[in-house]
Amino acid sequence: MEILKNYINGSWTQSSENETINVVNPANQEVLAMVPFGDKTAIDVDSAVAAAAEALKEWRETPVMRRVQPLFKLKYLLEENIDEIARLITLECGKSFAESKAEMQRAIENVETACGTPMLIQSEFSENVAPGIDEFMIRQAVGVCVCISPFNFPGMIPFWFLPYAIACGNSFIIKPSEKVPLTMMKVFELIDQLELPKGLINLVHGGKQSVDALLDNPEVKAISFVGSTNVARYIYQRGAANGKRVQAQGGAKNPVIVMPDADIEMAAKIVADSVYGCAGQRCLAASNIITVADDKGFIKEALVEAAKSKTTGFGLDAGIEMGPVITPDSKSRVEYLISKGVSEGANLLLDGRNANISGYEKGNFIKPTILENVALDGEVIKTEIFGPVMSLLHMKTIDDAIDFVNSNNYGNMACLFTSSGLNARTFRNRANAGNIGINIGVAAPMAQFPFSGWNNSFFGDLHGQGRHAIEFFTQTKVVIERWPKEWTRKF
Amino acid sequence: MEILKNYINGSWTQSSENETINVVNPANQEVLAMVPFGDKTAIDVDSAVAAAAEALKEWRETPVMRRVQPLFKLKYLLEENIDEIARLITLECGKSFAESKAEMQRAIENVETACGTPMLIQSEFSENVAPGIDEFMIRQAVGVCVCISPFNFPGMIPFWFLPYAIACGNSFIIKPSEKVPLTMMKVFELIDQLELPKGLINLVHGGKQSVDALLDNPEVKAISFVGSTNVARYIYQRGAANGKRVQAQGGAKNPVIVMPDADIEMAAKIVADSVYGCAGQRCLAASNIITVADDKGFIKEALVEAAKSKTTGFGLDAGIEMGPVITPDSKSRVEYLISKGVSEGANLLLDGRNANISGYEKGNFIKPTILENVALDGEVIKTEIFGPVMSLLHMKTIDDAIDFVNSNNYGNMACLFTSSGLNARTFRNRANAGNIGINIGVAAPMAQFPFSGWNNSFFGDLHGQGRHAIEFFTQTKVVIERWPKEWTRKF
Amino acid sequence: MEILKNYINGSWTQSSENETINVVNPANQEVLAMVPFGDKTAIDVDSAVAAAAEALKEWRETPVMRRVQPLFKLKYLLEENIDEIARLITLECGKSFAESKAEMQRAIENVETACGTPMLIQSEFSENVAPGIDEFMIRQAVGVCVCISPFNFPGMIPFWFLPYAIACGNSFIIKPSEKVPLTMMKVFELIDQLELPKGLINLVHGGKQSVDALLDNPEVKAISFVGSTNVARYIYQRGAANGKRVQAQGGAKNPVIVMPDADIEMAAKIVADSVYGCAGQRCLAASNIITVADDKGFIKEALVEAAKSKTTGFGLDAGIEMGPVITPDSKSRVEYLISKGVSEGANLLLDGRNANISGYEKGNFIKPTILENVALDGEVIKTEIFGPVMSLLHMKTIDDAIDFVNSNNYGNMACLFTSSGLNARTFRNRANAGNIGINIGVAAPMAQFPFSGWNNSFFGDLHGQGRHAIEFFTQTKVVIERWPKEWTRKF
Amino acid sequence: MEILKNYINGSWTQSSENETINVVNPANQEVLAMVPFGDKTAIDVDSAVAAAAEALKEWRETPVMRRVQPLFKLKYLLEENIDEIARLITLECGKSFAESKAEMQRAIENVETACGTPMLIQSEFSENVAPGIDEFMIRQAVGVCVCISPFNFPGMIPFWFLPYAIACGNSFIIKPSEKVPLTMMKVFELIDQLELPKGLINLVHGGKQSVDALLDNPEVKAISFVGSTNVARYIYQRGAANGKRVQAQGGAKNPVIVMPDADIEMAAKIVADSVYGCAGQRCLAASNIITVADDKGFIKEALVEAAKSKTTGFGLDAGIEMGPVITPDSKSRVEYLISKGVSEGANLLLDGRNANISGYEKGNFIKPTILENVALDGEVIKTEIFGPVMSLLHMKTIDDAIDFVNSNNYGNMACLFTSSGLNARTFRNRANAGNIGINIGVAAPMAQFPFSGWNNSFFGDLHGQGRHAIEFFTQTKVVIERWPKEWTRKF
Repeated sequence: MEILKNYINGSWTQSSENETINVVNPANQEVLAMVPFGDKTAIDVDSAVAAAAEALKEWRETPVMRRVQPLFKLKYLLEENIDEIARLITLECGKSFAESKAEMQRAIENVETACGTPMLIQSEFSENVAPGIDEFMIRQAVGVCVCISPFNFPGMIPFWFLPYAIACGNSFIIKPSEKVPLTMMKVFELIDQLELPKGLINLVHGGKQSVDALLDNPEVKAISFVGSTNVARYIYQRGAANGKRVQAQGGAKNPVIVMPDADIEMAAKIVADSVYGCAGQRCLAASNIITVADDKGFIKEALVEAAKSKTTGFGLDAGIEMGPVITPDSKSRVEYLISKGVSEGANLLLDGRNANISGYEKGNFIKPTILENVALDGEVIKTEIFGPVMSLLHMKTIDDAIDFVNSNNYGNMACLFTSSGLNARTFRNRANAGNIGINIGVAAPMAQFPFSGWNNSFFGDLHGQGRHAIEFFTQTKVVIERWPKEWTRKF
Repeated sequence: MEILKNYINGSWTQSSENETINVVNPANQEVLAMVPFGDKTAIDVDSAVAAAAEALKEWRETPVMRRVQPLFKLKYLLEENIDEIARLITLECGKSFAESKAEMQRAIENVETACGTPMLIQSEFSENVAPGIDEFMIRQAVGVCVCISPFNFPGMIPFWFLPYAIACGNSFIIKPSEKVPLTMMKVFELIDQLELPKGLINLVHGGKQSVDALLDNPEVKAISFVGSTNVARYIYQRGAANGKRVQAQGGAKNPVIVMPDADIEMAAKIVADSVYGCAGQRCLAASNIITVADDKGFIKEALVEAAKSKTTGFGLDAGIEMGPVITPDSKSRVEYLISKGVSEGANLLLDGRNANISGYEKGNFIKPTILENVALDGEVIKTEIFGPVMSLLHMKTIDDAIDFVNSNNYGNMACLFTSSGLNARTFRNRANAGNIGINIGVAAPMAQFPFSGWNNSFFGDLHGQGRHAIEFFTQTKVVIERWPKEWTRKF
Repeated sequence: MEILKNYINGSWTQSSENETINVVNPANQEVLAMVPFGDKTAIDVDSAVAAAAEALKEWRETPVMRRVQPLFKLKYLLEENIDEIARLITLECGKSFAESKAEMQRAIENVETACGTPMLIQSEFSENVAPGIDEFMIRQAVGVCVCISPFNFPGMIPFWFLPYAIACGNSFIIKPSEKVPLTMMKVFELIDQLELPKGLINLVHGGKQSVDALLDNPEVKAISFVGSTNVARYIYQRGAANGKRVQAQGGAKNPVIVMPDADIEMAAKIVADSVYGCAGQRCLAASNIITVADDKGFIKEALVEAAKSKTTGFGLDAGIEMGPVITPDSKSRVEYLISKGVSEGANLLLDGRNANISGYEKGNFIKPTILENVALDGEVIKTEIFGPVMSLLHMKTIDDAIDFVNSNNYGNMACLFTSSGLNARTFRNRANAGNIGINIGVAAPMAQFPFSGWNNSFFGDLHGQGRHAIEFFTQTKVVIERWPKEWTRKF
Repeated sequence: MEILKNYINGSWTQSSENETINVVNPANQEVLAMVPFGDKTAIDVDSAVAAAAEALKEWRETPVMRRVQPLFKLKYLLEENIDEIARLITLECGKSFAESKAEMQRAIENVETACGTPMLIQSEFSENVAPGIDEFMIRQAVGVCVCISPFNFPGMIPFWFLPYAIACGNSFIIKPSEKVPLTMMKVFELIDQLELPKGLINLVHGGKQSVDALLDNPEVKAISFVGSTNVARYIYQRGAANGKRVQAQGGAKNPVIVMPDADIEMAAKIVADSVYGCAGQRCLAASNIITVADDKGFIKEALVEAAKSKTTGFGLDAGIEMGPVITPDSKSRVEYLISKGVSEGANLLLDGRNANISGYEKGNFIKPTILENVALDGEVIKTEIFGPVMSLLHMKTIDDAIDFVNSNNYGNMACLFTSSGLNARTFRNRANAGNIGINIGVAAPMAQFPFSGWNNSFFGDLHGQGRHAIEFFTQTKVVIERWPKEWTRKF
């Protein structure tokens, strides 16, 4: 069984750490690989940081139009290899093959957008701010930058940051989740084909020890994190204590409101896709579905039908729409939360526990589940389940529903289904969340826009993607130049 | 003797804290006022935060073109009252009247710039990101924002933040330095004349207790701080631990390189103005002056002459160019550092200790001081003195000098005096500092540009002033709207 | 009777032309003033251009933050004098006092927006486009700029251009309509109070002769025009033939679609305000009202009621909502077009001809008129009436209605009334007009946005207001600087 | 001999015109192809416009991220075929193979930059401009756009416009110079490989008749032209008379100032490259070289040496640095102007007439020529020679030299060679030209910046390349949406 190597200073190198943990296919517990995990991964981190710091010297002085050339090439390599990468995502992370490809499409769009860095990195020039004085700004690289990425989007998340960081003149280290390191292994085979200085982009494996080593190494200047809120808060605090700039995205509990003036059939389908897509393991999964109407049940049946219709199984098998959750522990936790919901008073409209997928009996499968009338004062209604569980609520007015949305501690996403322009405008204006969908189930911003979590869904001020990424990965340098006319001119 | 009141919820209110400390004129130790100082100032803070949170509700929904109307008025009120405000700055902070007025001019320029917020706050719209789907961004207010400001620019610093925060729909609390609260008292008399919701802008007095109360109150969403590096790091860490966005500007040790191709006479004058202006108590004061030439002494004499010529005294007296440092403790510390420099091997070209200012014998005066050949491996060369002390160094080449600049732990400012375009370009490209001056002594960015400290001079990523302020004081909300054509059209 | 003077080179000067025409109150034919009109006004023009060219030299080198100071003051002067200016507008142009004030409010908003020019004029800086080479852009003044403005908004139109032009470092000449020169006379009394170089802003009177003189003078670099399409095309052609940059806004025939899912009562009121406001004499007046429904008549009655309710009379009299059209000729032309509509087959639902306004029997009054079922193949449906006449049409589907909208030769405005998000999105995406209103009757862009006519409503590419104005009133200068490292460094 | 076909509606089609003229290799008069030329080319134009208008319907509704996908591919196709394209450029246009490749590199950079259109085309969104009202802007396609390109950069010029136009949703027609149509024939073989709607990009051949047909066809909405000033003015006038938007770039007479503080040897080399590159046939060729010094001759010898060293010959032969001028007529005209310069009093330092290139005796060769002390009041000093002729002048001060620069009727480029930051700043601030070089010989803006001619070098306001191209190829549509709270909410 292969022990995964790090990619440091342009080479595949063995970890200093001998201890490993297994990378497992969540659909059948098959061990796919072994990944270094232990205190000595900190040594790997320091090697990677040293290599990245060295690579920086040449790279930051390379003109930005040349720095984007490898990104143009990377786009093509990713496109050519999208099927293989997607297969790996499904294998280690569990989602369906179609979902894995869609994930990589988002990654590629970020590479495309970062190809535009020569214009995005331009800064401002003001002539003659005072007689004979010009003032302008330069955006220069921050230094060694790091992405610590989660298990649920092993292919996409690093690309919210990496292409921008590189294009801006930084060097980069990716620490993938130890649960899903294989996707990045493949991506780094492609990165290895680019013409880049050695050490510019590095891959290090490990768990908390490697994270802490990254947070504490003084050469690391910027941390990009996506994961749970608890860890995000930890990362933000420890990174800040070390004086670094940090953007840390946490969890969510995303509400969706359905108005009776929506197209009910389509809304039901889209909502179910949002709740059950990626088995609910995404930070933009819809979770609390609030229907607003006199007729409480106007969409219930359609939702149940849409949920039931989801085919669950191993994501590489034909026709599979929903895969397993990531670990047996996750499965237990989700099943516990379903029971908890019931014990708090919810009506179990659809019970996905005890799923039995033929041929994948050991897989961490939970089938689509619907809890109706979840207690408003309970725990489940505010807990991120990260599994294929819909909580269905009824409220009397859109104002009540928006107030409920805004009582959320998180603020990653909020969506509304309606045909009314007024409802849409009221909602987008008032909902306390950074990503708003109108008749959209998964309001993931395109690469041109920041992925904008609010409240406990995000710590920091500049997000991933687009202009925010450019700003995060550069330092502003303001230059004031006086060439005074009074000074002796020699000619 | 007056005990200063807070300005909370649109009224002047007495502090909950009875304990006070004195506000003192540093030129003669005269007690000017008494300022609340103690644990119970935290109660005041919580009142102010509650008022600010309430004011927010109406204000954030007020159209931005109306939100800037009070700023247009404030510009005029500040201009009309500039002399009186400047007098107060000199009285409590010590700098010369001309310096105080120049400080307020910078404040006014920030108000002017924030008047342009209706355009600056615009965000991006993309039609048809997919068939029938539009995607766009909104910048909405962050919430209750706070400025904790230092003693050395009591009038200007709050304006790096306040006008932008307000224009962006936030409410605001200013906690001035307990050493110099009178300037803001006067400014708030003007703010009181604006048509604003009660509680929109608040003033609270106090020391560390009030700072901690601001850092810990969950309703406070954003912290802007300017002060020493130690406190800046503390603010960044504690604010981040509480999940807030923070921009914390720290100290500096600013290097200036003088090339022999510069206009020596003018360079000497400008450098002396930078070192001795505000008695060296500014984060953009030049401190280490590096001359580069075969002839080591080419500017020494001119610098000594320029330094000697500075008239020192009470800032409101006619002709005074330099005032005292802020406290007797400061004076002792600066004098100690001068001695330390000598003991580390420096040559004391000009000794400003034991200054005797007739009529102001009790003032915290130190006259212009020059230490030549300060030890490169000593403490003084890397310690922020925050007093009127120049360290004069000689290096052989501009490369050596830039390497020395870049060995600095701080990165607030770096300046070069030269007539050469190549020298200027090399320096601005390579110097590790966020504010660069070419033939400029105090490279303070205009209000249109971010005040860009680097390294230990700044913690965070978005700075004060200009577009960075707009970004810091808003949250991005991305909206994805689908109005699908397939949906039934009723007409 | 006063013969109006020009304002040239900072002074009120008599015209070279002795011939005059009368400025007349359209409500009663009272002569208000006499305005120079004839060939010799070309001499005035050349004086004004010479003064403006001279003023330019100093002004273009004045830092932009100083150039906006007079605009801050002008905002206040306009606010203080808004009632008097509005009174003059009503007197010479006929619209109601409330409409005149609203017009000036728009003018003031443009002054406010131009106060933000120090940021808007910033251009781009790219460091290190090749090793050792930086490239950046400067926006510099264009030169002498001219506004030729129409009779219907004597106070607002010049401010779409003037404040931006001045802030960008240009000098300016305004040629008001000879029908309504008094408004600008008053505005120039205020401009005279600003601290500006002599000749920076000039006022010249006259008709076609002065226009041609402006178009042909080689020192004039940029022409901003608003008027009818025929004249706009002439201006664009002749200005272009002379090598100038030109933005020429023409006429319109604005369609409004009302869907049955709109709030009918409110829509009727807003539509009537749009059709009859300013007696229909505005380029954003709604003209063709298209209802879409099975029930043809669903809004007819409400429209008739809203139209009937408009009080017509002298705009300074209390309670008057609609004034006269500008001249007896205009009145005759509008009345002819009403008759023509009827002769083409329309049903005259409301006939505003033969209006008799007690006390103003000589006024050019026409009361609100509604033509129903105007012939689609006739002339009236495509002719800009510029009077208080609504053409009411019925169509079966929104697609038919949009096709009708897009068959328009003009493209100034198109509006839709609906409660449906889908209808709104479809319409704004497909309608061929530059200013789109959703549940808005007069879709006039705020000062932050360009006033965007399309097709025959605009000739050129950059519009008035906002960033387009900044771009129009500046020339881009790209600078490429190499300070090559190979070159001998002297130190 | 091949008669060149048009590329219309996705197919290679024969021209309606039977008359042709020859495409000739200027190095040896070899006929390379025959190109349609005559009245009936107007029929071809109308076919192309019709195809382009049809293609537009689908393309403008295609999401912009998809519209840039063919550009990503085109970049690679151009890179793969750069040698073959460059060979064709040299063959029909005469410049050296290295120059031809460099030209195509610029073309590719524009394709890369246009790949960033999804962000560049974003427009502004303002929430809540009034209560319940949002206002935003959309940039939509203009329609059928046209590039009429000159003989001297057959490969690059169309790419200043084409990729931006396409990415913005327009369709496009290229009319290459009838002297050099082969380069675009090859480029269109590549375009033919892209997945594009039929008719989206078209190629039509011809001369003035086809130009006029393009200028007069009402479906053509935008004209981009590069050529001589006379034709540019004609294009601007006729296009404007037809109501189109036009950007028309004309000729130049580019001055270069050399200060004695410059690196003389390097300056001489760079200046010679600028004057003699492309045999002087480029709108950024340096033409008038002004030396400023007491010592008049400080760079004369170095310039003569640099000029003499240029190897002249057939551009595909090894080691050739300079090729022929485009036609025998051109050669005669240039030789006449050299004689004219002498007759006006100039000293002929180097005479390139009567060049005899072995093996290419029929070629239109002129060798590097230097006229010294050209008469300031003559014709040559202000006439664009468009041949390898340097006029060498001496002036006493930099102010005199700048005044001379600014007396130029053109304003394409002005350059300065100096080591002084003050000289550089003074020059870039004051020189009346849109493209400024400091120690640069050919100040061609990168694709991120507009190619900014001034005065008679440009008619219009928006230039090619970068953001200006995006603005030129889009129409702004401002949308004002009200979803009023007062309106009945149904739920």
